[in-house]
Amino acid sequence: MDYVYGPGRNHLFVPGPVNIPEPVIRAMNRNNEDYRSPAVPAMTKTLLEDVKKIFKTTSGIPFLIPTTGTGAWESALTNTLSPGDRIVSFLIGQFSLLWIDQQQRLNFNVDVVESEWGQGANLDVLASKLAADRSHTIKAVCIVHNETATGVTNNLAAVRKLLDDYRHPALFLVDGVSSICALDFRMDEWGIDVALTGSQKALSMPTGMGIVCASPKAIEASKTAKSVRVFFDWKDYLKFYNMGTFWPYTPSIQLLYGLRAALDLIFEEGLENVIARHSRLGKATRLAVNAWGLKNCTQKEEWYSDTVTAVVVPPYIDSAEIVRRGWKRYNLSLGLGLNIVAGKVFRIGHLGNLNELQLLACLSGVEMILKDIGYPVKLGSGVAAAAAYLQGTIPMIPSRI
Amino acid sequence: MDYVYGPGRNHLFVPGPVNIPEPVIRAMNRNNEDYRSPAVPAMTKTLLEDVKKIFKTTSGIPFLIPTTGTGAWESALTNTLSPGDRIVSFLIGQFSLLWIDQQQRLNFNVDVVESEWGQGANLDVLASKLAADRSHTIKAVCIVHNETATGVTNNLAAVRKLLDDYRHPALFLVDGVSSICALDFRMDEWGIDVALTGSQKALSMPTGMGIVCASPKAIEASKTAKSVRVFFDWKDYLKFYNMGTFWPYTPSIQLLYGLRAALDLIFEEGLENVIARHSRLGKATRLAVNAWGLKNCTQKEEWYSDTVTAVVVPPYIDSAEIVRRGWKRYNLSLGLGLNIVAGKVFRIGHLGNLNELQLLACLSGVEMILKDIGYPVKLGSGVAAAAAYLQGTIPMIPSRI
Amino acid sequence: MDYVYGPGRNHLFVPGPVNIPEPVIRAMNRNNEDYRSPAVPAMTKTLLEDVKKIFKTTSGIPFLIPTTGTGAWESALTNTLSPGDRIVSFLIGQFSLLWIDQQQRLNFNVDVVESEWGQGANLDVLASKLAADRSHTIKAVCIVHNETATGVTNNLAAVRKLLDDYRHPALFLVDGVSSICALDFRMDEWGIDVALTGSQKALSMPTGMGIVCASPKAIEASKTAKSVRVFFDWKDYLKFYNMGTFWPYTPSIQLLYGLRAALDLIFEEGLENVIARHSRLGKATRLAVNAWGLKNCTQKEEWYSDTVTAVVVPPYIDSAEIVRRGWKRYNLSLGLGLNIVAGKVFRIGHLGNLNELQLLACLSGVEMILKDIGYPVKLGSGVAAAAAYLQGTIPMIPSRI
Amino acid sequence: MDYVYGPGRNHLFVPGPVNIPEPVIRAMNRNNEDYRSPAVPAMTKTLLEDVKKIFKTTSGIPFLIPTTGTGAWESALTNTLSPGDRIVSFLIGQFSLLWIDQQQRLNFNVDVVESEWGQGANLDVLASKLAADRSHTIKAVCIVHNETATGVTNNLAAVRKLLDDYRHPALFLVDGVSSICALDFRMDEWGIDVALTGSQKALSMPTGMGIVCASPKAIEASKTAKSVRVFFDWKDYLKFYNMGTFWPYTPSIQLLYGLRAALDLIFEEGLENVIARHSRLGKATRLAVNAWGLKNCTQKEEWYSDTVTAVVVPPYIDSAEIVRRGWKRYNLSLGLGLNIVAGKVFRIGHLGNLNELQLLACLSGVEMILKDIGYPVKLGSGVAAAAAYLQGTIPMIPSRI
Repeated sequence: MDYVYGPGRNHLFVPGPVNIPEPVIRAMNRNNEDYRSPAVPAMTKTLLEDVKKIFKTTSGIPFLIPTTGTGAWESALTNTLSPGDRIVSFLIGQFSLLWIDQQQRLNFNVDVVESEWGQGANLDVLASKLAADRSHTIKAVCIVHNETATGVTNNLAAVRKLLDDYRHPALFLVDGVSSICALDFRMDEWGIDVALTGSQKALSMPTGMGIVCASPKAIEASKTAKSVRVFFDWKDYLKFYNMGTFWPYTPSIQLLYGLRAALDLIFEEGLENVIARHSRLGKATRLAVNAWGLKNCTQKEEWYSDTVTAVVVPPYIDSAEIVRRGWKRYNLSLGLGLNIVAGKVFRIGHLGNLNELQLLACLSGVEMILKDIGYPVKLGSGVAAAAAYLQGTIPMIPSRI
Repeated sequence: MDYVYGPGRNHLFVPGPVNIPEPVIRAMNRNNEDYRSPAVPAMTKTLLEDVKKIFKTTSGIPFLIPTTGTGAWESALTNTLSPGDRIVSFLIGQFSLLWIDQQQRLNFNVDVVESEWGQGANLDVLASKLAADRSHTIKAVCIVHNETATGVTNNLAAVRKLLDDYRHPALFLVDGVSSICALDFRMDEWGIDVALTGSQKALSMPTGMGIVCASPKAIEASKTAKSVRVFFDWKDYLKFYNMGTFWPYTPSIQLLYGLRAALDLIFEEGLENVIARHSRLGKATRLAVNAWGLKNCTQKEEWYSDTVTAVVVPPYIDSAEIVRRGWKRYNLSLGLGLNIVAGKVFRIGHLGNLNELQLLACLSGVEMILKDIGYPVKLGSGVAAAAAYLQGTIPMIPSRI
Repeated sequence: MDYVYGPGRNHLFVPGPVNIPEPVIRAMNRNNEDYRSPAVPAMTKTLLEDVKKIFKTTSGIPFLIPTTGTGAWESALTNTLSPGDRIVSFLIGQFSLLWIDQQQRLNFNVDVVESEWGQGANLDVLASKLAADRSHTIKAVCIVHNETATGVTNNLAAVRKLLDDYRHPALFLVDGVSSICALDFRMDEWGIDVALTGSQKALSMPTGMGIVCASPKAIEASKTAKSVRVFFDWKDYLKFYNMGTFWPYTPSIQLLYGLRAALDLIFEEGLENVIARHSRLGKATRLAVNAWGLKNCTQKEEWYSDTVTAVVVPPYIDSAEIVRRGWKRYNLSLGLGLNIVAGKVFRIGHLGNLNELQLLACLSGVEMILKDIGYPVKLGSGVAAAAAYLQGTIPMIPSRI
Repeated sequence: MDYVYGPGRNHLFVPGPVNIPEPVIRAMNRNNEDYRSPAVPAMTKTLLEDVKKIFKTTSGIPFLIPTTGTGAWESALTNTLSPGDRIVSFLIGQFSLLWIDQQQRLNFNVDVVESEWGQGANLDVLASKLAADRSHTIKAVCIVHNETATGVTNNLAAVRKLLDDYRHPALFLVDGVSSICALDFRMDEWGIDVALTGSQKALSMPTGMGIVCASPKAIEASKTAKSVRVFFDWKDYLKFYNMGTFWPYTPSIQLLYGLRAALDLIFEEGLENVIARHSRLGKATRLAVNAWGLKNCTQKEEWYSDTVTAVVVPPYIDSAEIVRRGWKRYNLSLGLGLNIVAGKVFRIGHLGNLNELQLLACLSGVEMILKDIGYPVKLGSGVAAAAAYLQGTIPMIPSRI
C-alpha cells in the first residue's frame, strides 16, 4: 500500500479515528483465542467494571458492541423506544443530522430543534417543549454532547436541569462519541439514561467497538420498547451476562485486549488528568486560530470544544485544499468540512492519546499550508500563541521517573 | 492477563475465531489513519473487487460491514425482506436455530423445516413447499451452508436446482460463515442472492467484519424491502460507493489492511488449493474419529463438513470435560457442544489458515484427553489413521523455493 | 518474501533460533527509545538482577552483550585468559569444534580432548591432565554443556568435582547456549566461572543478545588477562554499571523489553517447571525415535540431551532430504546434520517456549517424511510412544484459571 | 514499564537510536525462522546487493554483523590492520575519541590529529603527515564522517584528494554511523576502503546490526592483517558467502526483515530525496538555533551537520537540565552533551525516518524548555525561522496518490 507511506510519522489530526498509543497497538498484536475459554469472560468482567468509570456511572450497565458509533446510536434508540415515539433531538451539525436521520428512518416521531451550525443546542426551545408537554408525549431527549462537525459542546447538565425542573420523565440519550474520556462527562450525576461512544475516539483504539452504557431506567425501558432489534438487542447481552459467559456472539479478542490496555493507560494518567490535558489542547488550538486571524466555527465560548476545533477559512479559500495539502505535502491529516460547511471549514481533532508537542507540530503545519495557499499568515504566530499558554501549564508527566 | 498464558503456542481448534497467520497479524499492526484520505478508498476498491473472488461472483456487490456474523445475517434479511414475508428456513443445529430466532424476531413469517441435529436440511420438504407455492408466497429460502454446531454441510446446488425446477422466484439467502473460503462455494453458479461470512472464520482474521455479498436481484429487492434498518442498510453503502469514498461510517483501518493481507495469502496459495487443503483436513479428522471408535455427529457422508467435525462421546463421558482438559492441560482449544448436544459432542474446527501437522497436534491432544478421562482409546491410533491418509496426499508448498 | 509463506504455522524444531512466545513478540513491537533516559537504566537494573536467577547465581555478574553465541564465547575467553594460556577443551561435536577453533585463533594453547561424536566429554582424560598438572599450567577448562550438533549433555558437576578433587585453580568456562534455562544448570553450586547463552535459545527471543555471566573469580581474572579486546571488554560494562547508566554502547531497546517479557514468562511458569517440561519433551522424543527403530546419535543415556535429539538415519537415506521435505511439504523445520554427521543425522530441537502437542506435531511430521522417503516406519508409532509417556505426565498449566 | 509511558507519542530526537517507521516495525513483528532454510539465504542475497546502494559502491563487499557501531569499528580495524601499524586518526569529539581509544587498545600506533571540539578534522596536518611519509608507514587514515557529539561533518572528498595527491596507499577507513543514508556519501567515488554504519541510525531500525562495507583493497588487506579476530573476522563471512548460505553464525531474523523493509522505504522515497530531506531538516534546525540567539557547537558552516545539531547554552544554564525537562515534561528526548561538553551543549538529532512537522514539534518543545529554565527566548521564534525556510521548500510526498 505504497500510496500511504510518507517519510516520518503521519500527523493524525482528524477527530477520529485518532492515534493509537503503542501499548494499545502492542496489546492487540495477537492471535485469536477461544472466547468461550475461562480467560475471556474473566477479562470481560474487569472491562465491564472499569469501563463504567469513564462514563462516571456506578449504576449503569455497559455493552461492548462489535459495531461503530452509528450502530451504538441504533442500539441506544431501538432498545429504549418504540416506533412512533416522540423524541426531541437537536440538529446542530453533521453528526446530529445523521443521528436524526437514523431516528427518522427508525420511525420515531422526531421533534427536531435546529440551530445554526456553530451554535449549541437551543435549550430554550427544549424548555418550552417540556413545559408544554404535560402529558409526557416526549419519550426521549437526544443530544450530541460534542458535535464533531462544528466543534460545539452542549451543556448536558443544563439539559438535565430542565428535565428536572419540569419533572419530565423523558429518557435522556447522549451521543458522547467525541466527548467521553476527553471532556467532563458525568452519567450518573447528570441523570443520563443512555450514553455511548466509539473505540476509535478518545479511547484511542481502532474502530470496531461501540460502547453503550444504560441506566437502570433505560434497562427498564428496554423491557417494553417495541423497536425491532436483534443484533443490537441488550436482552441477549444481559442473558449472557447472567450466564457469566458475557458474549451473545463472537467479540474481537484483539479489541478486548486493546480496551484493557487503553483503560489501563487512562487510569495510569488519571481520568481527571486526561480531561485536563484535553482542555489544554483545546485552548491552545483556539489561541492559535485566533493568532492566525481566523474564526472558530463555534460561535460562543460556552460551546467551545476541547476535542475538535472547526476553523472557518475566508471565502476565497477552499478548506478542502488545506486538507489535501496537509496530506500531500506535510503528512498531516486534518478533518474536512462536512455538508453545508464543506469547503468553508477545516477541522483539527485534538482528542485521544496526544500530547502538546504533537499539537504544535499540527499547528505549525497548518500555518505553512495557509501560507502555501496564499492566506496572509505570519509563520510561527499560532505556535507562539499556543506555546505561550502551554509553556507554563503543562505538568510533569506523572508516571515518569 | 496471566490466566491466558501457557507454555508454547495455543492449539486453537474452535471453529472460529481461528488462527490468524503472521502476515495478517503484521498487516494489522498499525496506527489509525484518516479514512477520508485518498489512500483508504483506493485500497477499499481493490478489496471490494478481490473479495468477490472468494464468493465466486462477478455480478454480486460486496459489503464489508463492521459487525459480526449475527449482524451480517441481519443485513441479509432486513435489506431484502419485509415484515411478514414468508421465508423457508432450515433448522439443523444451533446456528441455524439462532438465525431462525433472528428471523422470527425480525417479524418474518418463518416456515421452519427442522431436521434432527446431525442431519442436513430436508430438501424434500423444501421441494413440496415450493411445489405447493404456486402463488409465490415464499419470499426467501434461508439456509446455513455449513452448520457449525453439528458439522453438517448442506447441498446448495440442490437447493438451487429445486428453485429452478419449480421456477420459483424466492430469494436464496445463504449463511456461508463457516464455509466461504474453505468449502466449494459458487455464488453465481448456484444463483445465491445473498451470501455472507465473518472475518474470523476461513479468512483467518480477527472478528469484526461481516462480509455480505448481494446479487443484482437482491439489490433490486432491497429497493422495496420494508424492514426497518439503518446501520445495516445497503443503501448507505451504495451511496458512498457511488461517491467513490466507500464508507458511510468509520471502518476499522486495521481490518482493511488485514483483509488485504488475508486475500493476498489466499490468492498466493490459490483458492482451489485452499479448498483442497480443507478437504484433506476434514477427511483426516474423520478418519481419526473413526479410529478412536467414536461417532461423527453428522449422520451421513453427504453432509460431512470439511471445516468442523462434531464428535459424539459415549453417554458416560461429559464432552465439556474434554474441552476443559484441553484448555487446562494441553493448551488445546476445542469447541463445546451447544444446546441440545451440550455435553454430548465436542467439536474440532479445522478451518482457516491451518496445516496438516497442526491438525495432527490437535488429534494427538484429543487422544490423550480421551485417555485421561477413561475412554479406552489406543494412543496414536487417530493420528496414525489421519497420517496414513495425509502422508501421500499433502502437496509440496507451492510458494516455497 | 513469498518464498517463506506456507499455509498455517511453521513448525520450528531447529535447535535455535526457537519459537518466540507471543508475549515476547508483543513486548518487542515498539519504537526505539533514548537509552540514556532514566527509564532504560531502571529497567536494565531489573534485568541484570533477574537474569542471574536463570544461571542460578547470586555472586555472578551478568553482561548482556549485543552479539551472538559466538561473540559470547569470545567475551568469555578474551576477558579471562591471555595469549598462550593453556586450556583444556573438549571436542565432541560441531559446536565444541567451533569453539575450539576460536580458542586456537585467539592464540590460546588448546589441549583438545576429543571424543567420538555422540559421546560426552572424556572426563577421565581431564582427570589425568589435572593430576599431571602440578604446576597449574592449565588456566581454564572449557566445556560445552550441551553439544547441539549431537544432542549430548555433559556432566558439569563431575567436572567441578574433578577440579575440586585435584584442588586445581583452573577457570571453569561453560557454553550453556543450548542448556541454560532448559536444563538443570547451577552456576554457583558447580563453581562455574563463566557461563554463557544466547537469546535465541531457551530464552525464546530473537538472536542478538549474548548473555555472559562471570563469577567473582572470573572478574578478578579479567583484570590481568592480556587478550586484546575492546567490544567484548567487560571493563567497559563494569565502568557503566558503576555509573548507573549501564550501557557502554547502544543496546537494542527491543531486546531489553523482550528479555523482560521472556524472564517474566519463565518465572510465571517457574524455572523448575520449565526444566521439567524440557525433560518431558526430551524423553518423549527419544521414545519416538526408538519406536521408529532409529538410533539416537547420543551413545549413552547419561548424555541424553533434553533440548536436542540427533537422530541417525540408515546409510541408504540422506538426512538432508528429510530436512528438505520437512520444509517443502510439511512446513516443518528440522536441523541438519553438521560436518562429519552431515547426511547421517537430522536433529529435532525441543527447547524453548514449546509444549507437548507442538512436539507431537513435529513427531507426526517426521513419521510422514520417513515414510515419504521409503523408510519402513509405522505411521503413528512414534507419536503413540511419546504420547503414552506424556499423557500421564503433563501437569495442569499452573497459570490457567 | 510504567516509568516510560507518557500521554501521546515520544518525540525522539536523540541522534540514535532514532524513530523506526511503522513498516519496519511491522516487518520485524515475527517469530524466528530456521536461518538454514532456503528462504533466508535467498533474502540475504537481495540485502547484500541492495545495501551496497546506500554506500554507493558497486565493488565493495558488505557484512551485516550482529553487533553495534562499536563492533563495526572493531571489524573495520582488525580485519585490515596488524598490531603496531601506524594509523592517522582525527579526534574531534566523543565518538572519534572512543574510536581512537579502541584503536589504541587494539595496539595500533595511533597518530592522533586533534581539533578543538566543534571543528572538523584538521586536514592540513594530514597533508603534512602524508607529505612526510615517503616510506608509507601510515597504514590507514581513520575518520568519522559525522561526529555525533558535536554535529561536525568532515570532508571525505578532501581526504581522498590528499591521499591521491600524495599517491599515498594508506587505507581509508570511515565511520559513517551518523552519515550513511542521510548525508552525501560515495564509497567508490571517494575511494573509501572500509565504511560502516549501524542499523539504529539513518536506516531507522533497532540497534543490533553493524553494517560494514569493504573495498577490494580492504578485502586484500584482510588476507594479511595480523590483528587477532574471530567473531569479527570477514574470512568466516566470505567462506559462507561462497557456500551460498551466507551466515557463519545465527543472524537476527527480525533484523533481516527489518533491513529489507528499511531499504524498500529508502528506495521508494529515493536515496537522493532522503538526503535532501536531511539537508532541509538540518538547515531548519540551524535557523531555529540562530533565532533563539544560541550558538551552534560547530564552528564553521563547512562542517555543519545535517543529521545532528549540538546547541551551546549560555554558561548559566546546565544543558542536562534541558534534556531532563524534555523527558519529564514534554515527552521529548534530546541528546546530552558528552564528555568535555557535558552541561554545555544539548543535541538535536534530525536523522532517520523523520519529517518536517516532527522537527517543528521538537523545536517548539525546545523553545518551551528554554523559557522554563529562564533563558530569554521568544516562543515561536525558532519555529517561525525554521518554517519560513521549510514552507517553500518541502516537496509533495512522491508516493502519495
